[in-house]
Amino acid sequence: MNVTELATTGADLSRLRELNSLSIVRALRDHPPSTVTELSQRTGLSRPAVDVIAQGLVTDGWASVLEPGASSAVGRPARRYQFRAGAGHVLGVDVGVHKILALLADLDGNIVQTVRRSVAADAGPAARLAELDKVVNACVAKAGKTPSDIWAVTVGVTGAVDAAGQTSFFTPLPGWKGVNLTTHLSARFTCPVIVENDCKLAALAERWKGAASDADDIVYLLAGMRNGAGLIIDGVLRRGYGGAAGEIGALKQVRWLNAPAHLQNCPGVPDTVSPDDAAAWVFTAARDGNRAARAAVNRYVKDLAVGAAALVLTLDPQVVIFGGGFSRSADLVLDPLRTELSRLCLRMPEVRASTLGADSVALGALKLSLNEIDDRLFGAGLSAPVAPRRQ
Amino acid sequence: MNVTELATTGADLSRLRELNSLSIVRALRDHPPSTVTELSQRTGLSRPAVDVIAQGLVTDGWASVLEPGASSAVGRPARRYQFRAGAGHVLGVDVGVHKILALLADLDGNIVQTVRRSVAADAGPAARLAELDKVVNACVAKAGKTPSDIWAVTVGVTGAVDAAGQTSFFTPLPGWKGVNLTTHLSARFTCPVIVENDCKLAALAERWKGAASDADDIVYLLAGMRNGAGLIIDGVLRRGYGGAAGEIGALKQVRWLNAPAHLQNCPGVPDTVSPDDAAAWVFTAARDGNRAARAAVNRYVKDLAVGAAALVLTLDPQVVIFGGGFSRSADLVLDPLRTELSRLCLRMPEVRASTLGADSVALGALKLSLNEIDDRLFGAGLSAPVAPRRQ
Repeated sequence: MNVTELATTGADLSRLRELNSLSIVRALRDHPPSTVTELSQRTGLSRPAVDVIAQGLVTDGWASVLEPGASSAVGRPARRYQFRAGAGHVLGVDVGVHKILALLADLDGNIVQTVRRSVAADAGPAARLAELDKVVNACVAKAGKTPSDIWAVTVGVTGAVDAAGQTSFFTPLPGWKGVNLTTHLSARFTCPVIVENDCKLAALAERWKGAASDADDIVYLLAGMRNGAGLIIDGVLRRGYGGAAGEIGALKQVRWLNAPAHLQNCPGVPDTVSPDDAAAWVFTAARDGNRAARAAVNRYVKDLAVGAAALVLTLDPQVVIFGGGFSRSADLVLDPLRTELSRLCLRMPEVRASTLGADSVALGALKLSLNEIDDRLFGAGLSAPVAPRRQ
Repeated sequence: MNVTELATTGADLSRLRELNSLSIVRALRDHPPSTVTELSQRTGLSRPAVDVIAQGLVTDGWASVLEPGASSAVGRPARRYQFRAGAGHVLGVDVGVHKILALLADLDGNIVQTVRRSVAADAGPAARLAELDKVVNACVAKAGKTPSDIWAVTVGVTGAVDAAGQTSFFTPLPGWKGVNLTTHLSARFTCPVIVENDCKLAALAERWKGAASDADDIVYLLAGMRNGAGLIIDGVLRRGYGGAAGEIGALKQVRWLNAPAHLQNCPGVPDTVSPDDAAAWVFTAARDGNRAARAAVNRYVKDLAVGAAALVLTLDPQVVIFGGGFSRSADLVLDPLRTELSRLCLRMPEVRASTLGADSVALGALKLSLNEIDDRLFGAGLSAPVAPRRQ
């Protein structure tokens, strides 16, 4: 449809009204309650047009009215309109090795419910899916909602996610390769269900409300007992042609496979410390001046830096985010990581610590759900607010 | 400006006319000469509107008319309109280590003039710039043009190009780091002058008219005595935040720095063969069954594959293009390269040989010049066809 045809044929007037409604919704979102005059200025539409459209949005359920208080001293104050972020809700879920975390948010991304349960690292797929169901059910129910109130669900998992929504390339979760979360969750939800790699979601979260909110070119490092990466280029999360972007860690020459072993095998870790907790012990000991622990952290950073340099040299990002479980020890890692990167790279990016910690994957999942809503509901036209159905 | 305002206010009628003209120009480009009826179908504009606009485009110089021959047997044949690709011209130049190549093309990318001169690998910046000037002058003059007829100039150079258009990070051209080609060429041309890395331009060329014209996610390998890469992601050439994307070769762990030495140091290369020609001798000998040469090619491919795998694991492209000087020996490289990559990568991309050979950088430079024209002239509105000035 050509823009000039919109202008000149009568048949497209309803489409024009839809686009106008969309302009007003966009002008309401991410703003405080606004008057007709403010909306007119923001959209370029006339005040009478805004008046009619805004009242239609209230009828449809996209906006609510704030009537002016009677007590105002200066003339007759104007009525204000507000986007009804509560018109719909989305879920973001992190199915991790050790925990399952679900966040429920409104259309502005305000989190209204959080449910977290730990899960055994060696739990099989049936047990893990049962825990997932419990967490999701509890999150929806505690918010006073039903599954049909949810407009989009995104689940983060460990491992690259293929076109079918499965981690068929590789996943450390036992027995998880054949699990199809889209199918599993579609038994409960009629809305779109998205499955995505945990590192990619964490990258999205850091750009949304974390350490990279000012950047469009971001390499996110998920650093822990396993290393991973999420890549944002020109403001867009990149999945790769088959969903396997960011998997540089699989190349043994860049040393990510080996890096955490320097911490686990550090001399002096007491027998009472479990292998899962060894790294935390080493970081604490290094902070306290233990020489063996410091040397282990340095060896760890040297190996981490090689894989990070491969990403930086390939993509030349503005910023590298050091995230994941080890980001709690960013105070020990960031400076030596910068030193190593400046030795290995042509152009040095900024290196920052994640500010979102353990919730970053679930937050990124929320954000992907919100993006899905934006694409489907606000991308082209605007109908009354109801949960979209899978296509 | 809101789309509905375009529809309803009189003040924007000239803007509407401009957008309509643009629709018709787009409908004319990349098509055979077209009738008013065909243009109406292609744009959704009415036949009377197309008629008026097309005649205006002829007056402005954007289109030419093909009057129907009188000999047609079936009724009165319609007049046809054609985009005037010759309304403007662009230059694409490759400043290489051993040669300088300039291509001059019309707005459809049809090459109308080619000038190539060899240059000594050890030539200093003044000598190389003098050769560049000769090549560019000859190319423009032989086409019967003057510099003011050129609408955009793009020059490809070896080394990552920074924000100032200089190869300040690194370049193998002696003394070239401080050279500012934009400044140098702006003394001759008033149109936009772009400087870009050779690998990035070659990648663009392969997608334009080479081995990757069907793909949006492309890793281009420039393989020769030096290795480089150009990256196209989601259909767009990616430069990185500071222009240094694709420079994975600088990381010694991925072995590109070492790879060509396996060819140069192959046992049995006669003393009469210069170091520059050693690789070609080894490829030929390997093709003839020489065991030492075959072993050297295998060692070369094993090292090349590590850097290629770093790019593939990071970006998960649809296709890897094996280009550069060594692509003449793709028959010896492609199969072992596929074997190595499938061993190292999670998801295997297609691996194809470049089809553009030694002209790929200059062709990519042409394409970038054409993109610049498209962005400036056809991106928003349409005025009469004259060379744009730098902003």
